[in-house]
Amino acid sequence: MDLKEVIGAMHSQEIDSLIIFKPENITYLTGFKPSSSSILILKDDAVLFTSKMEMNNALNQSKVQVEELKSLNEVKKNLKGIVGIENSLPVFTYNKICDDFTTKLTEIVESSRIIKSDYEVKCIESAIEIAERSFINTEISETENKVAAELEFNMKMEGSIKPAFDTIVASGVRSSLPHSTVTSNNLEFPVVIDWGAVYNNYCSDTTRTIVKNEKQSEIFEIVLEAQKEAIKVIKPGIKASYVDKVARKVIEDYGYGDNFIHSTGHGLGLEVHEKPFISQNDEIKLQEGMVITVEPGIYIKDEFGVRIEDVVFIKKRAVLLNKIRK
Amino acid sequence: MDLKEVIGAMHSQEIDSLIIFKPENITYLTGFKPSSSSILILKDDAVLFTSKMEMNNALNQSKVQVEELKSLNEVKKNLKGIVGIENSLPVFTYNKICDDFTTKLTEIVESSRIIKSDYEVKCIESAIEIAERSFINTEISETENKVAAELEFNMKMEGSIKPAFDTIVASGVRSSLPHSTVTSNNLEFPVVIDWGAVYNNYCSDTTRTIVKNEKQSEIFEIVLEAQKEAIKVIKPGIKASYVDKVARKVIEDYGYGDNFIHSTGHGLGLEVHEKPFISQNDEIKLQEGMVITVEPGIYIKDEFGVRIEDVVFIKKRAVLLNKIRK
Repeated sequence: MDLKEVIGAMHSQEIDSLIIFKPENITYLTGFKPSSSSILILKDDAVLFTSKMEMNNALNQSKVQVEELKSLNEVKKNLKGIVGIENSLPVFTYNKICDDFTTKLTEIVESSRIIKSDYEVKCIESAIEIAERSFINTEISETENKVAAELEFNMKMEGSIKPAFDTIVASGVRSSLPHSTVTSNNLEFPVVIDWGAVYNNYCSDTTRTIVKNEKQSEIFEIVLEAQKEAIKVIKPGIKASYVDKVARKVIEDYGYGDNFIHSTGHGLGLEVHEKPFISQNDEIKLQEGMVITVEPGIYIKDEFGVRIEDVVFIKKRAVLLNKIRK
Repeated sequence: MDLKEVIGAMHSQEIDSLIIFKPENITYLTGFKPSSSSILILKDDAVLFTSKMEMNNALNQSKVQVEELKSLNEVKKNLKGIVGIENSLPVFTYNKICDDFTTKLTEIVESSRIIKSDYEVKCIESAIEIAERSFINTEISETENKVAAELEFNMKMEGSIKPAFDTIVASGVRSSLPHSTVTSNNLEFPVVIDWGAVYNNYCSDTTRTIVKNEKQSEIFEIVLEAQKEAIKVIKPGIKASYVDKVARKVIEDYGYGDNFIHSTGHGLGLEVHEKPFISQNDEIKLQEGMVITVEPGIYIKDEFGVRIEDVVFIKKRAVLLNKIRK
């Protein structure tokens, strides 16, 4: 959805002006990624307010008119009528707006971001390519932090401005913690590596688990089966919660239901975690144009864990965007 | 300030329970750094609610009782009386609380975080040491992203889980943009490098500019003079805005007032940018125990920029925590 369509959606929700603070929403609508406070106002047109410090960056990158952000009070002069407010707006800032305007919480921009344009899918694909090439060129040896450092070095050299999130390299018993930070521990097996690159502000997000012994391989195969079954049922019209259910069912049937301690996936785009959420509670129907991760896992306390995560683009069916399996 | 003192401050503000979502505030009070939604409730005691996925991490790290986060409604059952709310709470979540409770916005935790304990200062010093050692071992050559990638690799190998923020390596004309992202451009001079490490969740933040020709050196000396003068006046009781004024005055006197397009510094701790802000508008009085950056800069459009940033710990006077000048 482009800026004009968002403005159209805004008006059809009877919102006269929309005040946008969330950096990813600003990036989505203007092309400019703010690194300090910036505010985008949509009415019939769009104006971006940014700090003096970022003015030149904004002028270079923004598709919409840019003005200097002097104070919230100055910006408020540009608001009119019913003011749309993002769910994520800090209550402190909200209070400074709601005294002077009738406000209405809205998720217009997040909703628009759920369906990716061809350009956005290409950016996510490029991020995945960078991540995968970097992974192939990383030697999985020595310590957790050495692997993470090398992987991140490679991604940076390939053009990823930063990792999409804190790279996870969790080995041995630490793989049983889904969100571990890296340590200087020597690598043991299995090794769970969860990493992502950024390309034109779009993220990738992939997990690979390298297993060694029979029990680890057995768990790996169960997780892989759960992932494959989940991917198989993905198509427009299916509920997100159903995809989660399918993955969970496979793992439950093998007796590991209690060891799958997170949801099956999430939307991916300008944020690593965005709508839709492929969880037991998300009743949203999948649509063509969504990009989501599918990442079942089994975590056995004090032993080890396995997670496999790939990115799919939803067309008539799920199209796998990852190219490597290693 | 420890947990007991925060609870004391809460009661003296007539807040019966405090609901905390901000990850840095949770880390500050519990020692646990959440990577997904977690909620801390303070009453006479403290209870941390975290996802099933993070339960084991939380049990290992948290100084306070941990329970599973099932839903906001479940957590709300633990609230009583007047409920303290963080300024940063998203309005969407706020609305789900304020319907059932009398609420009061408060910054108790942020205010407490302004004054660092000995432990916190040691963590910041360790982060600075990691950052400086990594910088010394980085060859400033080839391309912007190669320098950034090597610096970040070194920091990771030294134990920094991630860069404290997106490393800036801005060379040649790009140094005139205070917040540049790195490119694959070949290095030109000057080179502005702004980077930080993380140690036990505490950040460092330093900027060095490497100049080559006479004009660049001239600007460098002005910025350095501004920084030294600002550091000289720092002591308990002085207003943050006065420190900004002193730095700005030096730069203005040389005729570059319009080229100093950001504030002079900021507090540093669990966040890279936190209170106090050393800006024209922050009237807060400096106190013993604060840790702040001092980072004047001059940016000449379409030519180049120079910034110098060091970290100081405020005791009777400012104590410089950076050790290298290179």
